[in-house]
Amino acid sequence: MRNLLLMIGYDGAAYHGWQVQQNARAVQEVFQEALQNVLGERPDIKGCSRTDTGVHAREYGISFRTAHRIPCHRLVFALNRFLPPDMAVFSCREMPEDFHARYSCKGKEYVYEIWNSEIRSPFLEGRALHYRYPMDAALLQKAATCYLGKHDFTSFCTVDKRERRNMERTVTRAEVVRSGEMVSFTVSADGFLYNMVRIMTGTLLRVAQGKISPEDLPQILAAKDRKAAGPTAPACGLYLNKVFY
Amino acid sequence: MRNLLLMIGYDGAAYHGWQVQQNARAVQEVFQEALQNVLGERPDIKGCSRTDTGVHAREYGISFRTAHRIPCHRLVFALNRFLPPDMAVFSCREMPEDFHARYSCKGKEYVYEIWNSEIRSPFLEGRALHYRYPMDAALLQKAATCYLGKHDFTSFCTVDKRERRNMERTVTRAEVVRSGEMVSFTVSADGFLYNMVRIMTGTLLRVAQGKISPEDLPQILAAKDRKAAGPTAPACGLYLNKVFY
Repeated sequence: MRNLLLMIGYDGAAYHGWQVQQNARAVQEVFQEALQNVLGERPDIKGCSRTDTGVHAREYGISFRTAHRIPCHRLVFALNRFLPPDMAVFSCREMPEDFHARYSCKGKEYVYEIWNSEIRSPFLEGRALHYRYPMDAALLQKAATCYLGKHDFTSFCTVDKRERRNMERTVTRAEVVRSGEMVSFTVSADGFLYNMVRIMTGTLLRVAQGKISPEDLPQILAAKDRKAAGPTAPACGLYLNKVFY
Repeated sequence: MRNLLLMIGYDGAAYHGWQVQQNARAVQEVFQEALQNVLGERPDIKGCSRTDTGVHAREYGISFRTAHRIPCHRLVFALNRFLPPDMAVFSCREMPEDFHARYSCKGKEYVYEIWNSEIRSPFLEGRALHYRYPMDAALLQKAATCYLGKHDFTSFCTVDKRERRNMERTVTRAEVVRSGEMVSFTVSADGFLYNMVRIMTGTLLRVAQGKISPEDLPQILAAKDRKAAGPTAPACGLYLNKVFY
């Protein structure tokens, strides 16, 4: 059996996240159909993460096993013919037998995009959060720096009571950069809790609003309480940007 | 009567161009409805140019007369509430009585965007031309330079036999720039003939394909024959970028 890794990308606006659900179109389902069309079989595909409804991926890893002998470059070409225009396969690689798109992942990078202008952009519906009020990227950067390092991120996780697990994650990059009217928050870590980047962003927005100051961030982390952090920012601005294997 | 100039933008993917037509949703119509909702009247609105189906505008001028006393900044705010998310009003100004969005226009700038990668981008459906093969932006720049200056652009115009008019235009900017996988062709002129930028782009694509060389451009211009130039590039990559008043 071959164990293949596909690196893909998708505009999540039209999809109910990665995972197959009832009565909702999921990215996984669309990929499984395309693979069936190309390979004539329906392999069990593993995604690198569960993404929520409306979240985008500039890079996302999928692994699956197959006995099919199609060369990697032909598989990329053929899948792109069957996939809708808001999805694409960028590459395909042969991986060792024990590789798994999710469990072999060493880290990920997300970007949250904020269109900071009084007036919306007609080109960014579903692709960025529109924030109308003044926003000091340098102040947000100061707050974001507090996310760096190894912390218990319980305050930045939508609690899922079925799971009680290690809430520590190590953030290796946390940058807020302005380019014209677009403010981007980039965060890399060895792993992310559920809604972690969206709550980190919602907390930065609280800083932008002057409701909290960058100096409050260490306390919010120390509280280990979801209520201490800001709201969960909308899905539309979130992009899975890189997956590290 | 006031004479107002609105600067707007829109993603043209969902619209059959600017001008109201039968059985097709046009940008003009959507604006007229929004104005009616805000002003309670249906002014005769003038657009700065007829754009084709699927063409986008990052900046587009609209003028109309009204006796309504709504302040400019409130009109901008109110219109944006009534317009769909793929359209926006950026500003509103009081203009002299004889101002006309189309006839007062001193020039325009268009950008044609080409996604030059073997694999499509899942984020650019309807927003850029996907060109899969190698493309030398420096060679295209050499060809584009030939567009500069005052020329008869008959070779770069889809002939409309009802109109026989001056085919001379003065191009003041013609630049091909690569930024990663995106190649952008920017062209400014005092005016544009029908399909002029799309045919200019189609001719640059012929250069990219090696079917013609930059040295052939002067002859193509001199031929004053539509058949001498390349094909009309698709609408999806075209953006009206600036309007000069």
